[in-house]
Amino acid sequence: MDYDNLRELGQQLRVDAVRAADAAGSGHPTSSMSAADLMAVLLARHLHYDFGEPARPGNDHLVFSKGHASPLLYALYKAGGAVTDEELLTFRAEGSRLEGHPTPQLPWVDVATGSLGQGLPVGVGIALAGKHLDRLPYRVWVLCGDSEMAEGSMWEAFEHAGHERLDNLTAVIDVNRLGQRGPTRHEWDLDAYAHRIRSFGWHTVEVDGHDVAAVDEAYAEARSTALRPTAIIARTRKGRGVQAVEDREGAHGKPLPDAAEAIAELGGRRDLAVDVAPPPDVRAPHRAHEDLVLPHYETGDSVATRDAYGAALTALGAARGDVVALDGEVSDSTRSRAFAKDHPDRFFECYIAEQQLVAAGVGMQARGWTPFVSTFAAFLTRAHDFVRMAAVSRASLNFAGSHAGVAIGEDGPSQMGLEDLAMFRAVHDSTVLYPCDANQTARLMSAMTDRPGVNYLRTSRGATPVIYGPEERFQVGGSTVLRSSDADQVTLIGAGVTLHEALAAADRLAEEDIAARVIDLYSVKPVDAETLHTAADATGRFVTVEDHRPEGGLGDAVLEAFTDGRRAPRVARLAVRNLPASAGAERQLAIAGIDAEAIVGAARRLLAAGD
Amino acid sequence: MDYDNLRELGQQLRVDAVRAADAAGSGHPTSSMSAADLMAVLLARHLHYDFGEPARPGNDHLVFSKGHASPLLYALYKAGGAVTDEELLTFRAEGSRLEGHPTPQLPWVDVATGSLGQGLPVGVGIALAGKHLDRLPYRVWVLCGDSEMAEGSMWEAFEHAGHERLDNLTAVIDVNRLGQRGPTRHEWDLDAYAHRIRSFGWHTVEVDGHDVAAVDEAYAEARSTALRPTAIIARTRKGRGVQAVEDREGAHGKPLPDAAEAIAELGGRRDLAVDVAPPPDVRAPHRAHEDLVLPHYETGDSVATRDAYGAALTALGAARGDVVALDGEVSDSTRSRAFAKDHPDRFFECYIAEQQLVAAGVGMQARGWTPFVSTFAAFLTRAHDFVRMAAVSRASLNFAGSHAGVAIGEDGPSQMGLEDLAMFRAVHDSTVLYPCDANQTARLMSAMTDRPGVNYLRTSRGATPVIYGPEERFQVGGSTVLRSSDADQVTLIGAGVTLHEALAAADRLAEEDIAARVIDLYSVKPVDAETLHTAADATGRFVTVEDHRPEGGLGDAVLEAFTDGRRAPRVARLAVRNLPASAGAERQLAIAGIDAEAIVGAARRLLAAGD
Repeated sequence: MDYDNLRELGQQLRVDAVRAADAAGSGHPTSSMSAADLMAVLLARHLHYDFGEPARPGNDHLVFSKGHASPLLYALYKAGGAVTDEELLTFRAEGSRLEGHPTPQLPWVDVATGSLGQGLPVGVGIALAGKHLDRLPYRVWVLCGDSEMAEGSMWEAFEHAGHERLDNLTAVIDVNRLGQRGPTRHEWDLDAYAHRIRSFGWHTVEVDGHDVAAVDEAYAEARSTALRPTAIIARTRKGRGVQAVEDREGAHGKPLPDAAEAIAELGGRRDLAVDVAPPPDVRAPHRAHEDLVLPHYETGDSVATRDAYGAALTALGAARGDVVALDGEVSDSTRSRAFAKDHPDRFFECYIAEQQLVAAGVGMQARGWTPFVSTFAAFLTRAHDFVRMAAVSRASLNFAGSHAGVAIGEDGPSQMGLEDLAMFRAVHDSTVLYPCDANQTARLMSAMTDRPGVNYLRTSRGATPVIYGPEERFQVGGSTVLRSSDADQVTLIGAGVTLHEALAAADRLAEEDIAARVIDLYSVKPVDAETLHTAADATGRFVTVEDHRPEGGLGDAVLEAFTDGRRAPRVARLAVRNLPASAGAERQLAIAGIDAEAIVGAARRLLAAGD
Repeated sequence: MDYDNLRELGQQLRVDAVRAADAAGSGHPTSSMSAADLMAVLLARHLHYDFGEPARPGNDHLVFSKGHASPLLYALYKAGGAVTDEELLTFRAEGSRLEGHPTPQLPWVDVATGSLGQGLPVGVGIALAGKHLDRLPYRVWVLCGDSEMAEGSMWEAFEHAGHERLDNLTAVIDVNRLGQRGPTRHEWDLDAYAHRIRSFGWHTVEVDGHDVAAVDEAYAEARSTALRPTAIIARTRKGRGVQAVEDREGAHGKPLPDAAEAIAELGGRRDLAVDVAPPPDVRAPHRAHEDLVLPHYETGDSVATRDAYGAALTALGAARGDVVALDGEVSDSTRSRAFAKDHPDRFFECYIAEQQLVAAGVGMQARGWTPFVSTFAAFLTRAHDFVRMAAVSRASLNFAGSHAGVAIGEDGPSQMGLEDLAMFRAVHDSTVLYPCDANQTARLMSAMTDRPGVNYLRTSRGATPVIYGPEERFQVGGSTVLRSSDADQVTLIGAGVTLHEALAAADRLAEEDIAARVIDLYSVKPVDAETLHTAADATGRFVTVEDHRPEGGLGDAVLEAFTDGRRAPRVARLAVRNLPASAGAERQLAIAGIDAEAIVGAARRLLAAGD
């Protein structure tokens, strides 16, 4: 396509963005119009993509980090022959695949965007997969907004990509000067962006984003630049082409005031079809799939579940070539280091940059890899928005948060995962597992590996007794009843460290002739409602105990099983209500009131309250 | 203090760090030893501080962003005469103020650190307060680690401080080359850090961190540099001074193998006392405190609670000189723009950098200001770790999250706050409020303003009917019973948009001669247990309905009132269980099953199930 036609195509994309937003009555046409020429040139002259077969291994990847420019993306799909004009006008309508912000409901969208600052870090993940896992020549193109350059996650991405020399990655920055409520910090100071990005090891090109020849050259330069990712920093005008909105404040995130007039001003409708260049015919590498040999532990031994995590992860890596591990510079503590040692080519050190850490995992799963992402449970909160968006992306990936709860001891509250269960439970379609011993950890990791969605495993710092033999089976949505009799008067429910406290409490209560059922609720989500219902019917009284804040964790999970109109048992909930300081692990449990003694006391009080 | 003495002081700090960690049996002496000379020079020659009166307005602020170097901080306090040698050796012991990571249990600690990458952004907040609110000449000194330079939040801070020309801020970067599990990304490449930081508008000085004369000069240069913040990038050796650990891997985060030998190698114990320079005698500016005149709304009108937020915030700003507002470049949407217009000197635009946004608020409240921090509810998840740490800091600040739930309509799940209640409820000692109308919003904002701790107000995008008169009173921990009779068979509990659905459902049920109690549970935490107990006794059946994920929100809050062994009512929980796509607001409620029709259905099913 020659430059005249490219200019026409740019206008077509603008017209279609205006039409889509007008049909919807909402959306971001002006943010689409600034980037229209940039994307026209990319689609027609540099992208390699087969819209008919989005899973083709050689396909490039185009990520709209500025997801609100979705009308432009959908206009591109139309020009590329992937959607019809009719479907384009279903933008934002109920039931349409063309959502307000792009999601993988559309087969050409790798990951959902719309929370700014996420597309580039995810693009880094895809580019890492291209270089080090797939080892395929596809390129990753990420359209970024200028407002999102303020997000720290963007700089985690620039740092990671620069350091890894990801020359298969190009960031296209649409510097249209205007954010949601007025000018951006750097307005049209392209140098401000270029200096910063270059200092992180990138190649940069500054360009007039409406000069299709210059843009074309910039893409060519990006493609020919070796050993460095390239950022194309493009000066553009928001709302370009329509005087009523071009470079004007107050025109963000709404349809144009007069669509018909705007379309006329843009030269009317066009129906150019772009013959997008096909990808090279390449194949993804073979991924080994052998029998899994999980580590075994002897009952009676004391082993930290984080140690079992490291060992089982390594075993998974040996059996399955698709398993990869990522860590935030704490592999010594999470124990993912064991995997790094055995499978260095599938281990990714992300340093202390939890947002990039999670985004890299999201990018890799988009390419079909099976990531395990680990850091301290407390520090996964740093990436909460990325985990939330991973669910919107229908991503399948596994998280392991170590150093759960007050049981870590002296390090204090900054290092204690006390909100992680609440965070992961509230994620759409998530799975939350919290093992209490080493064999259970290994089994649950095997169970979570192929489970779709966001899966979370919570591990503990200190050693706990191995109570299950290696032959025991555990399933997502299951639980284990460890003490049970027809005489049970109360049910004690714990998981992880508190399960051991519950067992000790049951022993003490038995000395007082109080029979207590004990449930190991290792699957916090989904929860084993049936076993809980049975226990409620049998005992009528529950003590829940968790090394977590009282809100959103195990106690809430138990009660969730009784929100179908069923009668709930009487419940006493033990959880961490204090602000912990330094103390030894055992003392921390005692101070927080989640140890065996506290459980015994709570059970006694429940029983004393009568029926 | 001359250079010889400074070197001695550096050795003393090392010895004391080694002793403290040895007494504790844990801690980070090697990370302390690398920065000992840097801090010795700061304490003795550049810091202005009155340890006897930590609240003195002219005091400098010293923040250990690398909070794990707490033994060094406490050794400094000892050298400054603030803690005794005896107390120093209580490090990490139960009941000691000298926690594993610093917290404001110590009067000289402004904010808790220990989650890396937070001290510098908070320091930016204190420096902003110094320049624009306190207008006092104090300086902010932040000791940073090299590992934490990977955190995006650090670059949000560099960007914000550079752009704001905060020459009262100095970052001291302890480049000791070794992280937790091995070398950092840039090891001793000081230029790598300097290039990056300079590109963000800072002045940089590279220095040998063990050369006290050079360090002294660097501080002098920082103090005399106008219109730019300064970063002192110091090459240091982890574990400096003790051969067994100096610059060695595997020596992170543990006491020295032989403390006695190490102390001997460091030249033995010293007891130098530093006469820290006093701060200038200055006063913080007067803060107006006048009668609050809240906006009033007419019942029957339709007003979005976010509009009421903007108006009430502006009114609070007029009445109280201590109220400040911060926003993440969405003030147009959150409506904090109203405050910005009336009180531009107390409004802080933080652009799309939610971590720095929250950290700035934390820094300002440490100086006694009363911040209101606003962005979309969904994007507050970006700063989850900062909110978590704000609670550890015993910080008092207010958050407003707009665009709650599926009720925002077409924009889709990336923009919907669906996990925010779970996130804020799990924060220690937090308050969570969710008003349903404009007058209630204004009243609750007045109630939350002086409430200690982390306070969260959830606002809605769309207009809702004003159902309360301006004379109505609401309190934290309260609720309103809007429909009630002796014949009530079921209780409908909502808040925000779902409260209006609950009222409509009650009307429809009344047509079927089913009397329903309706509770407006605007205080999600603390929850009004008494009113819930009364309703449970009276009706025995609850329908909870929330525009939020089923986990961690209003439904869990209701059940929390029944975890003291009391009999819970039968409960049906309505919440957002689907992955929303685009649709209009009303349709979104219907699709998610949280509208009046769904409530009516749930109530009918509960009643049909019998007792």
